[in-house]
Amino acid sequence: MGAIITLTTDFGLADAYVATMKGVALGINPEVKLVDICHSIKPQNIAQAAFVLSTVHEYFPPRTIHLVVVDPGVGTERKAIILRTPSADFVAPDNGVLSYIIRQYSAGDADAAWQPIEPGAELEAIAITNPQFWRSPVSSTFHGRDIFAPVAAQLSLGVPPTNFGEAITSLAVLPLPKPHREKDGRLIGNILHIDNFGNLITNIRSRDLLPEARAITVKVGNKEITGLSRTYGAGEGLLALIGSSDYLEISLKNGDASAFLNTETGDKVIISQINQ
Amino acid sequence: MGAIITLTTDFGLADAYVATMKGVALGINPEVKLVDICHSIKPQNIAQAAFVLSTVHEYFPPRTIHLVVVDPGVGTERKAIILRTPSADFVAPDNGVLSYIIRQYSAGDADAAWQPIEPGAELEAIAITNPQFWRSPVSSTFHGRDIFAPVAAQLSLGVPPTNFGEAITSLAVLPLPKPHREKDGRLIGNILHIDNFGNLITNIRSRDLLPEARAITVKVGNKEITGLSRTYGAGEGLLALIGSSDYLEISLKNGDASAFLNTETGDKVIISQINQ
Amino acid sequence: MGAIITLTTDFGLADAYVATMKGVALGINPEVKLVDICHSIKPQNIAQAAFVLSTVHEYFPPRTIHLVVVDPGVGTERKAIILRTPSADFVAPDNGVLSYIIRQYSAGDADAAWQPIEPGAELEAIAITNPQFWRSPVSSTFHGRDIFAPVAAQLSLGVPPTNFGEAITSLAVLPLPKPHREKDGRLIGNILHIDNFGNLITNIRSRDLLPEARAITVKVGNKEITGLSRTYGAGEGLLALIGSSDYLEISLKNGDASAFLNTETGDKVIISQINQ
Repeated sequence: MGAIITLTTDFGLADAYVATMKGVALGINPEVKLVDICHSIKPQNIAQAAFVLSTVHEYFPPRTIHLVVVDPGVGTERKAIILRTPSADFVAPDNGVLSYIIRQYSAGDADAAWQPIEPGAELEAIAITNPQFWRSPVSSTFHGRDIFAPVAAQLSLGVPPTNFGEAITSLAVLPLPKPHREKDGRLIGNILHIDNFGNLITNIRSRDLLPEARAITVKVGNKEITGLSRTYGAGEGLLALIGSSDYLEISLKNGDASAFLNTETGDKVIISQINQ
Repeated sequence: MGAIITLTTDFGLADAYVATMKGVALGINPEVKLVDICHSIKPQNIAQAAFVLSTVHEYFPPRTIHLVVVDPGVGTERKAIILRTPSADFVAPDNGVLSYIIRQYSAGDADAAWQPIEPGAELEAIAITNPQFWRSPVSSTFHGRDIFAPVAAQLSLGVPPTNFGEAITSLAVLPLPKPHREKDGRLIGNILHIDNFGNLITNIRSRDLLPEARAITVKVGNKEITGLSRTYGAGEGLLALIGSSDYLEISLKNGDASAFLNTETGDKVIISQINQ
Repeated sequence: MGAIITLTTDFGLADAYVATMKGVALGINPEVKLVDICHSIKPQNIAQAAFVLSTVHEYFPPRTIHLVVVDPGVGTERKAIILRTPSADFVAPDNGVLSYIIRQYSAGDADAAWQPIEPGAELEAIAITNPQFWRSPVSSTFHGRDIFAPVAAQLSLGVPPTNFGEAITSLAVLPLPKPHREKDGRLIGNILHIDNFGNLITNIRSRDLLPEARAITVKVGNKEITGLSRTYGAGEGLLALIGSSDYLEISLKNGDASAFLNTETGDKVIISQINQ
């Protein structure tokens, strides 16, 4: 079947680890389409992988299978899971790499490290425990090859998730930093991600801002940006705009805002909005 | 239909932007074959993308669709276009990124910033203006996802170019530096591109050289190379040869000519040919 | 036919060389599946390519065609070959890049630079000499485009290897460094490869170690590691473990062992095992 499996890893492109998983998947489902999301996740950076995955999965066709192997705990007690949502399947370690997807469907405590899956929820979570679908023997250091890729490939053939193990009712999630509003009305957010252009993508979404009628000032480092631009090509110098994933971004026209501002992921961004 | 769409961008491989476009395209044409050309174009470097694309498109099967998103003007007034040639279709911003393809079919003034498309020419150019084929709403910062990928995918299904907008009669082109001959007979060219091996690819083609009977000296920086080699493995040290795309290249045997010579794109290369 | 061709090169991802080969292959077999192994082999590093290829080929389906173009001698007298094994075909220059595959099937002198193919061996080696299947004209600098890709694509259509040239009885191999045991019982090996995580992969395999009952100490640089771990997540600091390709690896928990130890490929690793 011509199903799609996407791949997101921290394996880089200088080794054959990614291709090894593809070879295994093609051996199980010769018709599967394999699409790389990103293999340049910083080693073991679960938060980065979670963010990158969150920006892309909804643009794939329904029932795409997203295979995510950023797995510092490989071979330890962390679970391997299948997460089925109304639109897609995810195959990943249970280490928080699916945090954005889980929170999208679940309204638990935002700061908890474990998120309950309520009975009747739209999410179905399975712990992958049935070795029938694994390569044998299973290495203790490369579950991407021996467990995750074979399971994703079998899923792509239509094997139901429940064949791979038991349903579970709690999933690991990362504390996703949310913007908060100070008493003086300022909104404090953080830089979530710095992209290839040096654009700073914050955790502030358009809905977090006060109505557009209010003048806005964005402060990052010791620089202030006044007003929102509509495009990267507008104005001059530093720009703030709502990017294509609905996050507030800071960009430098024809340049690299991250290098110019010397910022890092996690740095603070402060929004002030006054009545015009 | 099993059509081919190639992708050339400056999005890099550390974000999910490329995969987002692939997901959108596969949602429209599940059978399309997606082939990456290059995503490591330097951010907003239209000239580099134009050159890389020029070296590869003719090696793809007839009617391949080449999707090119190097688009610093995204969301501004620059047009989005479909360019149909006798052998392929190109979907790109109208910012000069198709300069080599346009000039291949058109004999206008080499220094003009706009190239006319003559009536009855082999080229057909369409401004993409019909929102029927776009994702909705269209972001103002990611037309790759919302306009270019959907249009390329619809083209791959056989939708005729004229369904996407109106024919246009003038296209943006870059001033492509051409070698010129001095009064003393020396040919002056420039470095167009530095490849992964550090080879310096110049804008001098084999037809620009005098007949082979004449001894040749190639000067770059303060180094001189005498004679042309046939292979990278010939001789010792710095070599000059006619590369696989018919451009004069400068190479360092078992090394990186660019690092050795400390050269950059645009640097001057001087050819002297004397009668033997 | 939906055959698979994998690609391993030192072309990098900033040029269109890889895509050029893919375009050529798709022009010959539109149904072929193209899977990238690695294009970040260091320029002209045949040993690195040989190792990376050795870790991955067996995970692909039977009769996969592995196209390998790390070819500093392109255009010189080195042969281009097809190597058919019981499970796969390899298309590559005869420069040692297939050393691990050749040695897997052949028991010649481990230090010889040429390995004989015995009559009746499981290996079949063909020198690619028949220009009928090449692009014409053939450049002297890009055989990947003009010879290797067209030959691999024709092979994927079922053309028998003997149609491409004559059988040959000797193949170039690299001297593959093997661990050796000193008189005092210590096992001396080398670092073969450093992966994206900074893990040091040695040429010592599990079968080279004495039975597990004996306590083990691994010395690299001026550091000593006692005992083998089962996973990357076990213990603290530097770890030694048997990795997923059965090689002894040295890893730094949540870190980069290579940067921490300041090691390079080729550096010595010393194993001591005493009776417990």
